[in-house]
Amino acid sequence: MALTDRTVPNDVALNTDLYELTMAQGFWESGLVDAQGCFNVFFRDNPFNGGYAVACGIGQIAELVENLRFDDESIAYLASVKAPGGGPLFKQGFLDYLRDFRMHVDIWAIPEGDLAFPREPMVRVQGSIIECQLLETALLNLINFQTLVATKASRVVYAAEGHPVSDFGLRRAQGHDGGLAVARASYIGGCTSTSNVLAGKIYGIPVFGTHAHSWVMAFPTELDAFRAFAKSSPKNCCLLLDTYDVHQGIQNAIIVAKEMEAEGERLNAIRIDSGDLARLSKETRAAFDEAGLPYVKISVSNDLEEYTIQSLFAQGAPIDTFGVGTKLATCDPQPALGGVYKLSATRDSSDEPWRPVMKLSEQLYKRTIPGIQHIIRYEDASGCPVGDMIVDEGSDTGNRSVMVNLVDPVTTYSTAGYTGRELLQPIVADGRRVGEPDSIEEAKARCKDALMRLDPATKRFLNPQTYHVGLERGLSELRQRLAAEH
Amino acid sequence: MALTDRTVPNDVALNTDLYELTMAQGFWESGLVDAQGCFNVFFRDNPFNGGYAVACGIGQIAELVENLRFDDESIAYLASVKAPGGGPLFKQGFLDYLRDFRMHVDIWAIPEGDLAFPREPMVRVQGSIIECQLLETALLNLINFQTLVATKASRVVYAAEGHPVSDFGLRRAQGHDGGLAVARASYIGGCTSTSNVLAGKIYGIPVFGTHAHSWVMAFPTELDAFRAFAKSSPKNCCLLLDTYDVHQGIQNAIIVAKEMEAEGERLNAIRIDSGDLARLSKETRAAFDEAGLPYVKISVSNDLEEYTIQSLFAQGAPIDTFGVGTKLATCDPQPALGGVYKLSATRDSSDEPWRPVMKLSEQLYKRTIPGIQHIIRYEDASGCPVGDMIVDEGSDTGNRSVMVNLVDPVTTYSTAGYTGRELLQPIVADGRRVGEPDSIEEAKARCKDALMRLDPATKRFLNPQTYHVGLERGLSELRQRLAAEH
Repeated sequence: MALTDRTVPNDVALNTDLYELTMAQGFWESGLVDAQGCFNVFFRDNPFNGGYAVACGIGQIAELVENLRFDDESIAYLASVKAPGGGPLFKQGFLDYLRDFRMHVDIWAIPEGDLAFPREPMVRVQGSIIECQLLETALLNLINFQTLVATKASRVVYAAEGHPVSDFGLRRAQGHDGGLAVARASYIGGCTSTSNVLAGKIYGIPVFGTHAHSWVMAFPTELDAFRAFAKSSPKNCCLLLDTYDVHQGIQNAIIVAKEMEAEGERLNAIRIDSGDLARLSKETRAAFDEAGLPYVKISVSNDLEEYTIQSLFAQGAPIDTFGVGTKLATCDPQPALGGVYKLSATRDSSDEPWRPVMKLSEQLYKRTIPGIQHIIRYEDASGCPVGDMIVDEGSDTGNRSVMVNLVDPVTTYSTAGYTGRELLQPIVADGRRVGEPDSIEEAKARCKDALMRLDPATKRFLNPQTYHVGLERGLSELRQRLAAEH
Repeated sequence: MALTDRTVPNDVALNTDLYELTMAQGFWESGLVDAQGCFNVFFRDNPFNGGYAVACGIGQIAELVENLRFDDESIAYLASVKAPGGGPLFKQGFLDYLRDFRMHVDIWAIPEGDLAFPREPMVRVQGSIIECQLLETALLNLINFQTLVATKASRVVYAAEGHPVSDFGLRRAQGHDGGLAVARASYIGGCTSTSNVLAGKIYGIPVFGTHAHSWVMAFPTELDAFRAFAKSSPKNCCLLLDTYDVHQGIQNAIIVAKEMEAEGERLNAIRIDSGDLARLSKETRAAFDEAGLPYVKISVSNDLEEYTIQSLFAQGAPIDTFGVGTKLATCDPQPALGGVYKLSATRDSSDEPWRPVMKLSEQLYKRTIPGIQHIIRYEDASGCPVGDMIVDEGSDTGNRSVMVNLVDPVTTYSTAGYTGRELLQPIVADGRRVGEPDSIEEAKARCKDALMRLDPATKRFLNPQTYHVGLERGLSELRQRLAAEH
């Protein structure tokens, strides 16, 4: 399967921060090879000052876990690393341990494409603390960026009000792998196609593209260029109007559209990639309508995102499709989700009960949530989600009539009248994938459905309504107890 | 060589926007298989409102060009792509052409690590227009991001005033390839190490890392955790103080440092990853000095970039080393360079003279520079660069006594008394690498040297002095002539 070749190279185990390996060696050396941990991937604030995030990257976790091992080349490299104070950083015994290393973790996650909210565990990993630690960086690298892009795409698509949006971001992404992640996540988040051919091949995403300014410049005149393109690609013809002057471009495109009609073909669309898109799209629409070419669609691009698209529609711009590149691929203006991976419980071996743990900080928002966490998503009678409750297996009082605010425990929210469902699903057990993987289309459909059911007040861009994430009462009390211990 | 495996997969030719392929088919079908183009990679504005950029990614171009071909799987995928209007998008004859496709382009570039300024050609590609087009996306994907990161790193390192800066960005990068690009470019830009182990293996960059908060939380007490880490890694011991309470962390670290001394070892450093780093670093320094441990270094991390580092030093924070992650890997607050690849000359075959071309736009800054461009960098007697002149081979008047402002041709800059050197160097000829590749260390040294020679007024972050890039008079006149033609 091509995906395996691409996303999981042989030395994928080294796609990690060095401290994961120095810690692993420390656990190994301290006799904690069997010690267990429970870690959670979560983010602290919704991206883009928005009201939600789209969980993404989940579908690639199982493959990562199944293939994470240290090949001979990787071991040889690690053996060569020197400690700052002299001598090899890693001991031979630890390297031998890594040579036979296989993952046996259990992982639960929010199904890909479903919504995620601040502080709740998007992904929960349980297993030997060494294994959990060796997954940290790769998991964050996978989930952080794809969740951010899927969320950005969902916002752009929401602004586009049903008009198709294509991902044009490859040239501004971080390498080919970054481009693939952009295409995959933005398709799940709602884009209809991508310009990225490799993403088409690997993920089956519909690909889209016609010609660039250079096509026009390579011919003696713009009209020559348009004619040549129409002749070569009559079934995929979108002419780019702004190489020299859009008004001249409109006239030349109309000539070619008429010539195509005479050949029994149809000019599919025109594209404008610079200038005042609101004014130019109106002038273009008027000219093509007047020429009896109402079927020619108008496509635009040029540093677009959700706000410019909203503004274009607010100005009545008659635009049919959007190409969104730079600001999608880089998630401008918030290029990092800031997702973290924090330990929430430990035990000396799998036979013992979990001991919940909590990280503190003088920055209060960095204080974590302890325990073996589940998420109950509450929905009203129409299926609209209204709040998520985080429950700890070990301190669950069974009282789910209210959930308690994380920061201010005197504030509670009633769950009366709502139906709760368990959100986290098992995706890896004993280091192996559970069940069949979701297709990318299933994740896309799940995202579309979840966003359709989300309150528009939570989806709006400016000051969205807060979606409440609270703690089950027993977990809230546990958290207060642990904080008081230090 | 490991690098080849990693950066150039078999289907790398598909790491492109679809329109490159539809245009290629159009050129092929229009009888323009031999038509030649000259394309330039350039950006329009310095990133981060700064005064310069560091050219990066250059060292990977030759490998990309040498390996760009369409394997059977890629051809099969392209054959399966449908046109929006029905039928296959690509013709069998064109796919046969792609099957035998090899690159024969010639490429010149600014040497990796040297400085680049707005509008000048960082990379110039000449060859069959089809080949040039098929390189566009991959080149931009390579150069845009690495140049941005190298520039960001150079700024962070400048702010750090000689103190080591380590790249901690992998977990916030766009996939493993994004993480590799961050590590490579930030090392060239001035970072001293990376946390990214794979980057250590592939590029030979020094790796750095010790332990995370989870290490501390996995033990019954912080003191237990510190002792266990010191025992496991006495030659690489940096203790993280802020899992619970920094002041308690300081006391525990001092206990362990004393115990290490008794064993003949030395605690290398402590790290603080949250809270008020200015205040906490001072309190930490005072406590360790008072305890007779002046050699223990202070390392900090937590959403750092050039401005926070400047602020920390302005407050007198006694910090020795920095870990910079999120804002380096995502180049916050400007996550895209916006580099483009524009056609500047064409000819029907390699026997004919070049015809300079120019893209226009109602957005004046999008108007391009025509011709076969060279860059002459002028330096003063001390080697400090003072301005770059862009010269077109075809319209060179030989008069280099002044250069002409790009936007406002009545403004000129004298080059009298300065020494000019040709900046662009050949890196690919007839599709093959020219000479031996620079090592990453050579690129790093070049960057350091170039920045050392750059006027501090151009390096400062706030309102930097503009470094002038002008046109040779003949090129300025050519540009005015071409603009008037439309």
